[in-house]
Amino acid sequence: MTDTIAPSPSVPAAFQPIAPVLPSRGALRPLGLDGVRLTGGLWGDLHQLNADVIIEHCYGWMSRIGWITNFDRAAGVAGGAHDGIEFVDSEVYKLLEAMAWELGTRSDDLLEARYRDLVQRIGAAQEADGYLHTSFGRESQRPRYSDLEWGHELYCFGHLIQAAVARLRTGHDDDLPAIARRLADHLYREFGPSGRQAVCGHPEVEMALAEFGRATGDARYVELATLLVERRGHEQLQTTLYQGHEYFLDDLPVRDATVLRGHAVRALYLSSAAVDVAIENDDDELLAAVQTQWANTVARRTYITGGMGSHHQNEEFGDDYELPADRAYAETCASIGSVMLSWRLLLRTGEPRYADLIERTLLNGIFVSPREDGRAFYYANTLHQRTAGEEENASGLSERAEATLRAPWFEVSCCPTNVSRTLASLPGYVATSDDAGIQLHQYTPMELDTTLTDGQRVRLRVSTHYPFDEKVVISFSSDLESPITLTLRVPAWAVHTAAATLNDEQVAVSGASVAITRAFQQGDVIELVLPLEPRFTWPHPSIDAVRGQVAVESGPLVLALEDVDLPDGVTVDRVTVDTSVAPTRTSSGAAVSLRVHPPHATDWPFGAMESSAGAPLEADLIPYFRWANRGPSTMRVWLPESDQL
Amino acid sequence: MTDTIAPSPSVPAAFQPIAPVLPSRGALRPLGLDGVRLTGGLWGDLHQLNADVIIEHCYGWMSRIGWITNFDRAAGVAGGAHDGIEFVDSEVYKLLEAMAWELGTRSDDLLEARYRDLVQRIGAAQEADGYLHTSFGRESQRPRYSDLEWGHELYCFGHLIQAAVARLRTGHDDDLPAIARRLADHLYREFGPSGRQAVCGHPEVEMALAEFGRATGDARYVELATLLVERRGHEQLQTTLYQGHEYFLDDLPVRDATVLRGHAVRALYLSSAAVDVAIENDDDELLAAVQTQWANTVARRTYITGGMGSHHQNEEFGDDYELPADRAYAETCASIGSVMLSWRLLLRTGEPRYADLIERTLLNGIFVSPREDGRAFYYANTLHQRTAGEEENASGLSERAEATLRAPWFEVSCCPTNVSRTLASLPGYVATSDDAGIQLHQYTPMELDTTLTDGQRVRLRVSTHYPFDEKVVISFSSDLESPITLTLRVPAWAVHTAAATLNDEQVAVSGASVAITRAFQQGDVIELVLPLEPRFTWPHPSIDAVRGQVAVESGPLVLALEDVDLPDGVTVDRVTVDTSVAPTRTSSGAAVSLRVHPPHATDWPFGAMESSAGAPLEADLIPYFRWANRGPSTMRVWLPESDQL
Repeated sequence: MTDTIAPSPSVPAAFQPIAPVLPSRGALRPLGLDGVRLTGGLWGDLHQLNADVIIEHCYGWMSRIGWITNFDRAAGVAGGAHDGIEFVDSEVYKLLEAMAWELGTRSDDLLEARYRDLVQRIGAAQEADGYLHTSFGRESQRPRYSDLEWGHELYCFGHLIQAAVARLRTGHDDDLPAIARRLADHLYREFGPSGRQAVCGHPEVEMALAEFGRATGDARYVELATLLVERRGHEQLQTTLYQGHEYFLDDLPVRDATVLRGHAVRALYLSSAAVDVAIENDDDELLAAVQTQWANTVARRTYITGGMGSHHQNEEFGDDYELPADRAYAETCASIGSVMLSWRLLLRTGEPRYADLIERTLLNGIFVSPREDGRAFYYANTLHQRTAGEEENASGLSERAEATLRAPWFEVSCCPTNVSRTLASLPGYVATSDDAGIQLHQYTPMELDTTLTDGQRVRLRVSTHYPFDEKVVISFSSDLESPITLTLRVPAWAVHTAAATLNDEQVAVSGASVAITRAFQQGDVIELVLPLEPRFTWPHPSIDAVRGQVAVESGPLVLALEDVDLPDGVTVDRVTVDTSVAPTRTSSGAAVSLRVHPPHATDWPFGAMESSAGAPLEADLIPYFRWANRGPSTMRVWLPESDQL
Repeated sequence: MTDTIAPSPSVPAAFQPIAPVLPSRGALRPLGLDGVRLTGGLWGDLHQLNADVIIEHCYGWMSRIGWITNFDRAAGVAGGAHDGIEFVDSEVYKLLEAMAWELGTRSDDLLEARYRDLVQRIGAAQEADGYLHTSFGRESQRPRYSDLEWGHELYCFGHLIQAAVARLRTGHDDDLPAIARRLADHLYREFGPSGRQAVCGHPEVEMALAEFGRATGDARYVELATLLVERRGHEQLQTTLYQGHEYFLDDLPVRDATVLRGHAVRALYLSSAAVDVAIENDDDELLAAVQTQWANTVARRTYITGGMGSHHQNEEFGDDYELPADRAYAETCASIGSVMLSWRLLLRTGEPRYADLIERTLLNGIFVSPREDGRAFYYANTLHQRTAGEEENASGLSERAEATLRAPWFEVSCCPTNVSRTLASLPGYVATSDDAGIQLHQYTPMELDTTLTDGQRVRLRVSTHYPFDEKVVISFSSDLESPITLTLRVPAWAVHTAAATLNDEQVAVSGASVAITRAFQQGDVIELVLPLEPRFTWPHPSIDAVRGQVAVESGPLVLALEDVDLPDGVTVDRVTVDTSVAPTRTSSGAAVSLRVHPPHATDWPFGAMESSAGAPLEADLIPYFRWANRGPSTMRVWLPESDQL
């Protein structure tokens, strides 16, 4: 990696696409949800599933279990005790954010009515000075800001403000942005330069305030975000028996750290905010520090799925190379936080490694969360399921991390709503522009329609079955007057095999990209071929947990072996893979040559070396993100090599 | 394993040795602390270290930080708020138990005075109805029994009662037994047949009540222990977001379970109590259930060190074969609980497998806890330390499980006092008797002096440097009139190599024992040779975490590689072991042929197979229990094989 940072051109104010993140400068600019329309395929189908099912699912659950009614209680128009833990407000706000992105790109009267109803009820709970939280400050509740470590007040505010950013960016400066302004102004008074010198236990509001500053043009919000980022890391938050300074990322200032550590979601949200304020303040030292943390974390503390955070205890990062497969925590929200961070670094630097990790993490670490029907979710994402487990209770709340199947809702239910807002904004991660042209970072069926800074309107269509087929076809449907550069990312696994043509003429693949400069005309067709031959992938020798094992990958997809694809009575823990036989592609993933070993029971599991040749068996692997959609099962990503048993 | 249980002869009431556990029937009878005197060696030195240092260390800490003063506060003779978490009473009681065993076998005026002072202060805190807890029931405290899940009230009572058993068994029916009687009678009223149908979140009182019943002859206490064991497992305790029924062992009745699960210490204490009540009630079904649980747990959920409980989260057992080395929890108290359980099963059945596990667990899983100077302890016992960490603050409290070096005291400080009472009663685990003779289960320098049921007095001496030398010499120092059988356990690792002589004549080794029947005379000498050639030990192929790795064992000792034994700058994570070269014995452990590999940095730790031959290096391994006595270091028990890298 390089820590050298390219010069950072400003974004013209006129270009304000519908995008969650709009840095005021950077190498690349988001095209936004208005610039890219997904048209089916893996990404498009999930985007649609969210619109059709997941938003409704989340709304239904939170209506049913009182998390929305909490606002009516706070407003004094409903009775009963507060439902849920103290940060359930944030789930309502994340759902609002998802709704806002949807309403910004399509018309839906029912959704609009629900959105407005929610905003009205939330607004009614806001207090005169702007404070808005259903768990604090009222009679029989704890006082405001009496538990900054665990109360999650500012964390909830952050999610409200991010929902307001979505409303502003989709063209409505109406009720929710007004509520958010009052809240942000309250925060500026309470925690600003002359307020209390404190931070919230869970970072989130920093990112939200930076974005709200960008969206409203009010510099105070960026100033407050900066203060909150800089204030952290001085051992100010009260630790507990089990949560130390590191847990809260309060052990070291962001600019002094070299790797992510502590609670994974907190670490990733804080780092994302650090990039935001580094950009707004032209603080290249802070930016470089986060880039170093990203690089070290990716090199040593990241699962092959992109998942981050290996400890169940405290939802924390482990030590370098401590990446157990059979107890992978890899929280869905940490993967979402990782995409947020990489996206910010990609926009700022243009380096394809960030888009590589986004693709890996989205496809394997996030798309795995929702069940195919959109009505259940993984919170933790193990890479090895030893026991098949039982169906979750469809009507009860689940413990977040111990579910062996996806669960409809959780006591701490951050993941479903986080998945929803991520899927709602999915078109925003596909492509960017700069002064020279267009960059395609991700390949999925879509129509792109945007206007460049030179005034040229660019329209193109991507047709592909990638990541299930190797060919990506890009057809221009507008005539350009002057040349632009179309840059196609070549994923790291394809740099030696990718090929590209322009109107059937070969064009050069140069490292991690294909760049074609041309005054493109309607009918110009670029074909990018990213060979998906399945490959064995070995772990770094320092990753003890999966030594002697291989994973199988096909393009950006990590594959998995699920017992439902094995003969009756054979579990995934009784097979090894013969790596002398190359895996072959199948329609759904890959086929590999396995050996099935007899069950091997002992009174004491340590002793002389045992070996068994095993019986040969050909078996199909499926994409990891699709596992456990056929009922309870056992599963492995990492398969022992046959000569290791 | 067999679930067939041998007939269970009753123990004559006249034989009441100084022993923590005295079942009313069983295959074997404890000789007690009065029957065996340790005379140096590994066991004897630790027993002495406890007497000289550890008891004083625990007393000093609890005096200094108010845990003893809590009793004065409860009695109304001291002011200030209660110090420490709600179950610190139990630490004082465990220390009292350790003191009682010491006072039962030697005279020590200072210790006696301290003991009496403690008992007097504890007694002053007892309420009129027998209840005695410093955290509940007084003004500004929570009401009695208002938090059975987490309050640990009965858990604390159990430890008080166990301390009283120690006092009774060492010949004093004085103040503490009287306090315990009042408390146990209170418990019988509150939780007995006509009391509340409830159990305590943390099992402990069950074992204590069973033993108190045995020691006092009051059948009500055994009845209450039985009720509490049987009452558990019906999903009665209130679960939390993170702790389900399994955590509390409240998911299944003990007699229906097939493997230990949930919180490891709770599981082991409950199982031990189940054996106690099964024996007292002649309940072979319950006994067989626990034996099955023991066998399955040992075969699939136990570390090579004997450690149990692999999850930091909830201090729980993992799934079968889920035994990560680099995040081994293996709490010291769980090892102690495991010894308690195996000891009860050994006494009941006489099967040597239980003594095997006791040896392994004591030497590797418990003796590792105290630092060589007896002033710091491990709570969790990892098998792989990746980073050297920092010295603990010698005067502050430590978080229980994250310490990389032993810590002097913990916020939850169950381990030091548990180690202390275990070391105090160590002579009790060495030998037993039955109607036919004497069984030696463990080999350490000692003098045995006991009277058999036929009235013959047996005196013998064991001289050995085992486990550091292979020869164990047993010399009789009394003349017997009629034959007895001397049975010597042969550990599982030695069944093919052990040899024995009687007065230089070879005697047969038969499976896991050597049995010699003879009217032994003064001067008779038995030599048992247990060859200690270091050996490579491979893990079961289902233990993913250590695949492709070997451990080195010498006799009962698990060895470890510590970086202080490597050249400067070489960490334990950069070496592999050449298993084609047999390890050789050294005075401290073994020498192995390693390969030192260059550091291997990558941007992304998954990809093509990398290999490096590495530079050869001979290195010394030390006994695992001695690691981290030379300052901060990195350590591995499991070493990757050279051909695996």
